[in-house]
Amino acid sequence: MAVNERFLRACRREPVDATPVWFMRQAGRYMPEYRTIRAKYSLLEICRQPELAAEVTLQPVRALGVDAAILFADILLPVIPLGLGLEFAKGEGPVIDKPVRTLEDVQMLKPVYAEANLGYVMEAIRILRGELSGIPLIGFCGAPFTVASYIIEGGSSREFLKTKAMMYSAPEVFHALMEKLSVVLSDYLVAQIRAGAQAVQVFDSWVGTLSPRDYEMFVLPYSQKVLEAARAENVPVIHFGTNTTTLLPLMKRAGGDVIGLDWRVPLDDGWALLGQDTAVQGNLDPALLFAPLPEIKTRVHDILRRAEGRPGHIFNLGHGILQNTPVDNVKVVVDMVHEYSVQSEKVP
Amino acid sequence: MAVNERFLRACRREPVDATPVWFMRQAGRYMPEYRTIRAKYSLLEICRQPELAAEVTLQPVRALGVDAAILFADILLPVIPLGLGLEFAKGEGPVIDKPVRTLEDVQMLKPVYAEANLGYVMEAIRILRGELSGIPLIGFCGAPFTVASYIIEGGSSREFLKTKAMMYSAPEVFHALMEKLSVVLSDYLVAQIRAGAQAVQVFDSWVGTLSPRDYEMFVLPYSQKVLEAARAENVPVIHFGTNTTTLLPLMKRAGGDVIGLDWRVPLDDGWALLGQDTAVQGNLDPALLFAPLPEIKTRVHDILRRAEGRPGHIFNLGHGILQNTPVDNVKVVVDMVHEYSVQSEKVP
Repeated sequence: MAVNERFLRACRREPVDATPVWFMRQAGRYMPEYRTIRAKYSLLEICRQPELAAEVTLQPVRALGVDAAILFADILLPVIPLGLGLEFAKGEGPVIDKPVRTLEDVQMLKPVYAEANLGYVMEAIRILRGELSGIPLIGFCGAPFTVASYIIEGGSSREFLKTKAMMYSAPEVFHALMEKLSVVLSDYLVAQIRAGAQAVQVFDSWVGTLSPRDYEMFVLPYSQKVLEAARAENVPVIHFGTNTTTLLPLMKRAGGDVIGLDWRVPLDDGWALLGQDTAVQGNLDPALLFAPLPEIKTRVHDILRRAEGRPGHIFNLGHGILQNTPVDNVKVVVDMVHEYSVQSEKVP
Repeated sequence: MAVNERFLRACRREPVDATPVWFMRQAGRYMPEYRTIRAKYSLLEICRQPELAAEVTLQPVRALGVDAAILFADILLPVIPLGLGLEFAKGEGPVIDKPVRTLEDVQMLKPVYAEANLGYVMEAIRILRGELSGIPLIGFCGAPFTVASYIIEGGSSREFLKTKAMMYSAPEVFHALMEKLSVVLSDYLVAQIRAGAQAVQVFDSWVGTLSPRDYEMFVLPYSQKVLEAARAENVPVIHFGTNTTTLLPLMKRAGGDVIGLDWRVPLDDGWALLGQDTAVQGNLDPALLFAPLPEIKTRVHDILRRAEGRPGHIFNLGHGILQNTPVDNVKVVVDMVHEYSVQSEKVP
């Protein structure tokens, strides 16, 4: 089967036959096939068994007809070889056993050798490249800030107070941690590309909690390292965050061929803030997948209309698919995106 | 003692001798005086005993030297006479016993008569006007969307999925609830003004979860009713939200003499989005109150510098004071703001 080129071409801002579409967290608990596997294995067990990770990655590709597969993994996997411990407490999200709070904590972080310590991820990628006949595979990692926030807070957070307090009161500790993470995450992402990932996404999911000033001082240089390391491997790089309207020009400066937009900014306004020399990905509110079909259609078409007239749009949500999302609605969005593009081409 | 006019003048964009400063949640657990009272009474007990509410309101005025007092109360108090039940579960925030999910639920909401059902709030205001020698008193309510989100979710939320699902799938229920809340909240705010509040703030704390399109369709008309009802009483009205960069022009259209800005948007950029015919309030990240003094000073001065050259800036945080905030740092910020303004006046 010929390679589905839509996604990769859109990343490079080349014309496409139809707008490519995939979804963050397209594999997961909303899918019955996934729940069947999760009934037998924990999240970490699936990640660490390459055949299982590959199978789960393929489920939405088969079920939805998306234009790209994204490796099933978790942004916090590198925390395990760093020696910090990672569990997923029932209903509470990730818990890091030994949060980092001091310079000694940073110095105690173990070196991470991607192939040796996270080889199961690369093995899943190799399996997937054999099985994904023609659909490109996206690898990914968390951006240094988002990973650091979990490592400092010890888990999820609303206020990111421990993270910010460290930035302001112990900047040398924060910078040392970010420096360390930027090396580990760069190596990890490069290893994924060398194992066969045809594009990568860097998830800075929580960076929108920062002011532009803090982003520039504390985050930009480290994200830049990771994004540039991936770029040097000659695959398209997607740079994603939420709540980032005021950070977009700085995120562009940090790097990425494609910048993710969330639903808080109309797609054309966000694109204007970035400039036409960048591709964009987004930006349906994941909650809209719970709406009736006519409402979904209105919103999907609105986004596609805002992207018209220039190449370089990848349709996606503004954040990951939510639990309990109706699978049929996800499938319908894929079809709507593809059909709209074909129809609009017929319009002279 | 003469009335401290700084705050009220700045709301009206009139020149002031020094930038006025107050803090959202300036009374609360970070203050030892407050914790002494909280050891004996629950949050709701304090709200419902006007002498206690007044005492707690006065604590930060005495301790910090702020230019305005804000009534100690909770945005969810109107939920009690609506018949929905309200508790504050330990460490979990507010819990609403009977969330609203259907049109029948909305129709079952009891009528609320502010003076009869929430008279303890107005009584606290009357006590405070007798005791606040010269410091203006701010009354407040939640905006319809933010109050509705608690009522629909049954408490706090990260994703606001039930709220959005109702907007999209049962808009008639959502609109009916918002209509009802806009009446109740307008009456409540007007009652506060008639009891003596010299300015009011409408808290739309969580509205930043919405796209501009959803804000315009589902929120703007109802916020507008509340803001206009207050405006008609001839006191300054502050319209506050977080995460609102892309909503600012619509929030201005909804109303308010002063619009709140959070730290995600540099103050001058946010002001430019609003236009010079609006006053602004903000916008230090509350986490910066945990920083060392030189860093706090740099950030406070940066905000003041961005506001220079035009009247109409009220210094505040971008959101409420966080628990465990060092009181001394809060006091220092008040002094920094006042001193900066005096110094900069000396510069020709």
